[in-house]
Amino acid sequence: MTDYRRLRVALLGAGSVGSQVAGLLQQHADELADRAGARLELVGIAVRDVDARRDVELPRELLTTDAEQLIVGADIVIELMGGIEPARTYVLAAINSGADVVTGNKALLATHGPEIFDAADQVGAEVYYEAAAAGAIPIIRPLRDSLAGDRVQRIMAIVNGTTNYILDRMDTEGAEFADVLADAQRLGYAEADPTADVEGFDAAQKAAILASLAFHTAVPLDAVHREGITSIDKAMMDSARHAGYVIKLLAVCERLTGESGDSISVRVYPALIDRAHPLASVHGANNAVFVQAEAAGNLMFYGAGAGGVQTASAVLGDVVSAARRHIAGGVGVGESTLANLPVVPVGRVTTRYQITLEVDDQAGVLATVAGILSEGRVSIATLEQTVAGEHAATARLVVGTHKALEQDLSETVDRLAASGVVERVVSVLRVEGD
Amino acid sequence: MTDYRRLRVALLGAGSVGSQVAGLLQQHADELADRAGARLELVGIAVRDVDARRDVELPRELLTTDAEQLIVGADIVIELMGGIEPARTYVLAAINSGADVVTGNKALLATHGPEIFDAADQVGAEVYYEAAAAGAIPIIRPLRDSLAGDRVQRIMAIVNGTTNYILDRMDTEGAEFADVLADAQRLGYAEADPTADVEGFDAAQKAAILASLAFHTAVPLDAVHREGITSIDKAMMDSARHAGYVIKLLAVCERLTGESGDSISVRVYPALIDRAHPLASVHGANNAVFVQAEAAGNLMFYGAGAGGVQTASAVLGDVVSAARRHIAGGVGVGESTLANLPVVPVGRVTTRYQITLEVDDQAGVLATVAGILSEGRVSIATLEQTVAGEHAATARLVVGTHKALEQDLSETVDRLAASGVVERVVSVLRVEGD
Repeated sequence: MTDYRRLRVALLGAGSVGSQVAGLLQQHADELADRAGARLELVGIAVRDVDARRDVELPRELLTTDAEQLIVGADIVIELMGGIEPARTYVLAAINSGADVVTGNKALLATHGPEIFDAADQVGAEVYYEAAAAGAIPIIRPLRDSLAGDRVQRIMAIVNGTTNYILDRMDTEGAEFADVLADAQRLGYAEADPTADVEGFDAAQKAAILASLAFHTAVPLDAVHREGITSIDKAMMDSARHAGYVIKLLAVCERLTGESGDSISVRVYPALIDRAHPLASVHGANNAVFVQAEAAGNLMFYGAGAGGVQTASAVLGDVVSAARRHIAGGVGVGESTLANLPVVPVGRVTTRYQITLEVDDQAGVLATVAGILSEGRVSIATLEQTVAGEHAATARLVVGTHKALEQDLSETVDRLAASGVVERVVSVLRVEGD
Repeated sequence: MTDYRRLRVALLGAGSVGSQVAGLLQQHADELADRAGARLELVGIAVRDVDARRDVELPRELLTTDAEQLIVGADIVIELMGGIEPARTYVLAAINSGADVVTGNKALLATHGPEIFDAADQVGAEVYYEAAAAGAIPIIRPLRDSLAGDRVQRIMAIVNGTTNYILDRMDTEGAEFADVLADAQRLGYAEADPTADVEGFDAAQKAAILASLAFHTAVPLDAVHREGITSIDKAMMDSARHAGYVIKLLAVCERLTGESGDSISVRVYPALIDRAHPLASVHGANNAVFVQAEAAGNLMFYGAGAGGVQTASAVLGDVVSAARRHIAGGVGVGESTLANLPVVPVGRVTTRYQITLEVDDQAGVLATVAGILSEGRVSIATLEQTVAGEHAATARLVVGTHKALEQDLSETVDRLAASGVVERVVSVLRVEGD
């Protein structure tokens, strides 16, 4: 066995991912040493309660509640505590003590990314965060390194497993949202409080991280437009299926080319996507990141978006990279925000839409609706009276539009709602994936 | 504009990929400088004929027929000539002169990889080859870095666009191989001499490269079992569809766990794959690499497997990485063949099979067939008499097997063929993707 140099690794947090990381570090110690060119010595695991029950048994002598002390003298600090504080304080302390940091903390990076990357740049440390972007899916290195000579035009990503699981079951079983959510909670696919997932908060954090990386721009979390899936019902699913679509919660990060230079849009919402699109065949709790690049064309990265052992794989890949850097010397790439493109509000984005309306079933209604759309600069691509409306005197109209400006569309829908001939705006969904 | 250090970049070859690389290097010069931390100065392009017509117009003053001279003093040499010689000589000369090398030459790496990587290790140079593995799909960094802390169990990959295009059209249109091939040649999807694609040579080269990387083992090209798709006909396609499968040309790189330690198998052949498998929805000339890792679970990387500008993206990503390394200092990762697992012949591999037989339509035949299978240690999973045979007195039997050893299966099929009750062995196909 080669006599490798030892690197001191400190682990903060021993939840589902952390305990797997600790287990794999010990189980595969020899193989990891060969890969990293250094022995990765786990010197301690900071936890809130050393007596708590865990999925993976951890050596009692490694557990400590004193994270601050553990960081001192570590070469690599793995932060898997989640949440903003005290994670932020510990990560900054680790950087300032000269350690490289590996984190899976998307909330922290989406809110304090620039502060953390700046601190790292100042001392020449590196922050690795593969596990924060799309769980086990390797997406950071492809975006940062493989596509470094290309220009990303758009990312469309399914980055939340819980919502994809729910939407997929609604689609395949014709079930209602509330029923599938309850079932998902029972099976452990959704939390008791599902807000972070179903309202799109988790996806928005990942969207901010992906957009920052793809467009070399610091994207603050509050610049991400966010809508959840709680309003999606069986009728919308059926209507989508009828039209050849499936509804997915998408994180869309898009470069907009304008006369006064490029800008970007980052948004999370449920959208219709053609069933022939590769993203449409992402089932269950799986995730996928679809990347459109100027030269490379369409790429897709698919895998498990969550799960303790799956995410641990991404963390360990980062640990090995950090170790190699320690051994090889040299400085890392650093986070690039050189492009620093402006992030535009969702109103300035153009997409196609599917508008479903409950209208009066009488002569002249179609002309009125078409007139309002046309005045609002929303051009009709398809029009279908799908089913009889809920009441005898109404009909249901499904309008597919050409690309329209979100702001125009939104104002037009308001005007339709107030027009007198529209009983109810049943749904307005964007269509993505052209 | 930042005042960056200049790096001298020499390009060998100006075919469909090379001319795109030259074009993008000049078009995106400022952006690339920001990404790389250095200005990438294209100092020359070595070609066979400076007067040849090209897709992208190249500055005449950069063209030279003297590759040897061009290499001298270059910081980064991009080799896109293809073929073994003189590419090998130039690559070794570049390494020995201290340059980093970026290559898209799969034939070279599959046959002379160890020689080239050893030469690079000795002088501390790096060889980048993203474009040689799966065209524009970023797969090298995920396998080498992102999964560095994990253990790859199996790769199943569609790495040849021409054969996927042909098989996909045969599947969707019910067309015959020869007709689709002729059409593909007319449309430029297949070469005038399609041997390298349809006989699996191109896929075998990529399989050797992927397996070397995934299993940290030098895999010589002649250790790759290879079969092409020329024997696939409409009847086999129909039968596959009927059973819920699609036929794909797969490169399978597999870790086999045995009592005396791990070994690997690397093989390329047309195989049946379940229509619900993510690889089944890879259409047209697209490629995909499906990776099963111990911790990360199932991952898939999808994109264009070929094309000048698409592949140029992968080359430029490597050029930027090489430039960063020049600027940052430090040594690279190097190719790891530390595991050095033995590569076993295909006979020692176990998969499931679908055997289609033309048998005499008389009593007792089924018992005879079942008996021969059982004696040969091939266990029957499904059995179907699908259609009447070609002759009135025959029937067609489709046998799906449980996992069996290839050697057992092969001997058993020989015994079936000689049994007297089997008129003809119509087809024997492996089933992959469990």
